[in-house]
Amino acid sequence: MNIVLLSGGSGKRLWPLSNDIRSKQFIKIFKTEDGAYESMVQRVYRQIKTVDADATVTIATGKTQVSAIHNQLGEEVGISVEPCRRDTFPAIALATAYLVDIQGVDPEESVVVCPVDPYVDDDYFKALKELSGQADKGEANLVLMGMEPTYPSEKYGYIIPESEERTAAVKTFKEKPTAAVAEEYIRQGALWNGGVFAYKMKYVLKKAHELIDFTDYDDLFSKYESLRPISFDYAVVEKEENIQVMRFAGEWKDLGTWNTLTEAMEENVVGKGTMNGECSGVHIINEMDVPVLAMGLHDVVISASPEGILVSDKVQSSYIKPFVDELDQQIMFAEKSWGSFKVIDVESESLTIKVTLHTGHSMNYHSHKNRDEVWVVISGTGKTIVDGMTQSIKAGDVITMSAGCRHTVVAESELKLIEVQLGKEISVQDKQKFELEY
Amino acid sequence: MNIVLLSGGSGKRLWPLSNDIRSKQFIKIFKTEDGAYESMVQRVYRQIKTVDADATVTIATGKTQVSAIHNQLGEEVGISVEPCRRDTFPAIALATAYLVDIQGVDPEESVVVCPVDPYVDDDYFKALKELSGQADKGEANLVLMGMEPTYPSEKYGYIIPESEERTAAVKTFKEKPTAAVAEEYIRQGALWNGGVFAYKMKYVLKKAHELIDFTDYDDLFSKYESLRPISFDYAVVEKEENIQVMRFAGEWKDLGTWNTLTEAMEENVVGKGTMNGECSGVHIINEMDVPVLAMGLHDVVISASPEGILVSDKVQSSYIKPFVDELDQQIMFAEKSWGSFKVIDVESESLTIKVTLHTGHSMNYHSHKNRDEVWVVISGTGKTIVDGMTQSIKAGDVITMSAGCRHTVVAESELKLIEVQLGKEISVQDKQKFELEY
Repeated sequence: MNIVLLSGGSGKRLWPLSNDIRSKQFIKIFKTEDGAYESMVQRVYRQIKTVDADATVTIATGKTQVSAIHNQLGEEVGISVEPCRRDTFPAIALATAYLVDIQGVDPEESVVVCPVDPYVDDDYFKALKELSGQADKGEANLVLMGMEPTYPSEKYGYIIPESEERTAAVKTFKEKPTAAVAEEYIRQGALWNGGVFAYKMKYVLKKAHELIDFTDYDDLFSKYESLRPISFDYAVVEKEENIQVMRFAGEWKDLGTWNTLTEAMEENVVGKGTMNGECSGVHIINEMDVPVLAMGLHDVVISASPEGILVSDKVQSSYIKPFVDELDQQIMFAEKSWGSFKVIDVESESLTIKVTLHTGHSMNYHSHKNRDEVWVVISGTGKTIVDGMTQSIKAGDVITMSAGCRHTVVAESELKLIEVQLGKEISVQDKQKFELEY
Repeated sequence: MNIVLLSGGSGKRLWPLSNDIRSKQFIKIFKTEDGAYESMVQRVYRQIKTVDADATVTIATGKTQVSAIHNQLGEEVGISVEPCRRDTFPAIALATAYLVDIQGVDPEESVVVCPVDPYVDDDYFKALKELSGQADKGEANLVLMGMEPTYPSEKYGYIIPESEERTAAVKTFKEKPTAAVAEEYIRQGALWNGGVFAYKMKYVLKKAHELIDFTDYDDLFSKYESLRPISFDYAVVEKEENIQVMRFAGEWKDLGTWNTLTEAMEENVVGKGTMNGECSGVHIINEMDVPVLAMGLHDVVISASPEGILVSDKVQSSYIKPFVDELDQQIMFAEKSWGSFKVIDVESESLTIKVTLHTGHSMNYHSHKNRDEVWVVISGTGKTIVDGMTQSIKAGDVITMSAGCRHTVVAESELKLIEVQLGKEISVQDKQKFELEY
């Protein structure tokens, strides 16, 4: 099976664990059988590989997520990088061209497209494989997955099939309804539209060429910024006459808010947290080093990270986005393919950061115009290159770099250092990268 | 007026803002008229000086609070330092001896003793002055203040006076009752015992000599550790026949728990905090650099500091102590007379701290057996002395100190530095102090 996972969004609705560069799909919140924690994207990837070890997985995403994806899934996973956000039709067209032109997949083959962040069990991925098989048959140009509704939700669009058979032609689509209207749809046999579908790649490439003037993947990639944002539903699905829907009745949760996310968590406390006996329905997700103590709370989620602290009634947590938009805060931590960083002190003319570099990884060779820097190595071994001079480093070593000085560090074992930035105008934009000449 | 303020307690009931070395009375939580914040002890001290500019104020406390007191009240305030905790009778005897033998106060003068942490207005201190005046008259050996009860509290002992006059002889004392019994006491004209009283100093010195074999303050101080812990109520008050009570009907709040403390706060948010419109009765007290967002909560206190995060129903917050006892956490920050420190990163073989030194202050000249240290100056100016060598320092300077090396730093202007401690056995106990020879 070929599968494209759509990985988007800034993840503000799961603040403070998600931020502009760490989306919800990368939060390690689900306990695995061996006691470790995995993220949504790790869980989904593992499930796909369990059901179909040979599956070709491609993640369609923006460039800000590339390092987090490699960090969590390794280097083998395919990534179709969108140069900027242009909604789902350009993203799916680009990922399809990537599969055909870069990965060399036969355009006669089918591909399944689905969001990266459903909380599901293995049955779902078995159903995706059947969906792909149905697309292979060529009875229809597109085969949607229709989720059997469990309640008259106002959050989803509805698909009304021609018949009650497992696979049927689509009669019509309905926009997100009110609950009363949703009940009426369900009486007519309607299914939720979860944005999951399969098609033969040549079909979407043909649609893409009808709407966009391009030759191949590289050309499409280079023109991406000039494309008009348009959704795949609007550009393709709603206009297609020859379209089928396949029913799916297994577990399928949309984990977009703290309310639904905590429903899917096996444990009430992740990280350092204690609650007294008077708490009920409380979840603590704490990524800070200090403990959280909850007393006498009901149906509340507490989440703490270096970005901030959320304490919310679970239902109210759905309305978080405008408040997070207001915060306009500096990014305080990030996980990258090379390691991670965490801001540990902020002053008007200094910024102190803890940097962790994974074994074998290094920073870019770079300099800053307006700040000096000091590194204090706190663990691990490696080497620094400062203005072309290489030096071995270990815990306790100190490296000072004046503004303008070119520098990098290479980790020979996992390397942790405290970086103190000093200057009147400290900014993440103040970074010039250079080629390193050994 | 001579006044002794009893400042005790580890303040666990106001965790995480209070810890073993910062008690609740030092938390800057009350907004003053000029928009700054002051602590309980600062507020009480300011109020005393407003009512009686010439008042001699002595704080009876343990040595762990001395630097916080000087930091908040300056150097002039008198401090009677208890070498260890031995309950209120030895503490009051020591403070009285301190006033007579060290401060040179005439033992014929009266002194008022009261806790350091009531939340009261100026009327209370006017009443203390009258209490002192009543003790001056010599009609009784002890004059207690009796608070007019506002409800049948189970939290206080009760004083039953002989009459309803403003000042009356005490008929009897009652232990903390049930609410029903308290109602009966109140019908009999009982008053709350708030632990506030006045006496002529010679009276308490006489009682002290009856119970303890000592000559003067220095002798009592040197014997302090061998003294039997006993409360002033038990040793003196309950045994005294010639005792009066003076009524007080003004505002008087006991700020021992988050529930009562937040009642006394003028603002709902201190520090970075936001709440949505669905919150009611919520208080946020945030000493961290990152924002707190509260949504849909009712009658909840949220308090965050480098020690941890509390989220509690206000009534439940009274039961916090056993949970905090369980935490057994490293001290993460402290305010001292010389400045403050905050732990900003903890690793298995390193500890990173931000140190702030006030102008003119310095550390002890010291060394460590089992750790190296690195200082990175982030702001201010001063000088370091390392193994006898003096060096001027400014922002950006780096000082490295191997284990065994003697070092100190002197702040010429307010000085901030990042201290990285490196070693396999980092401990606050690993510190040898030396005399500095210039």
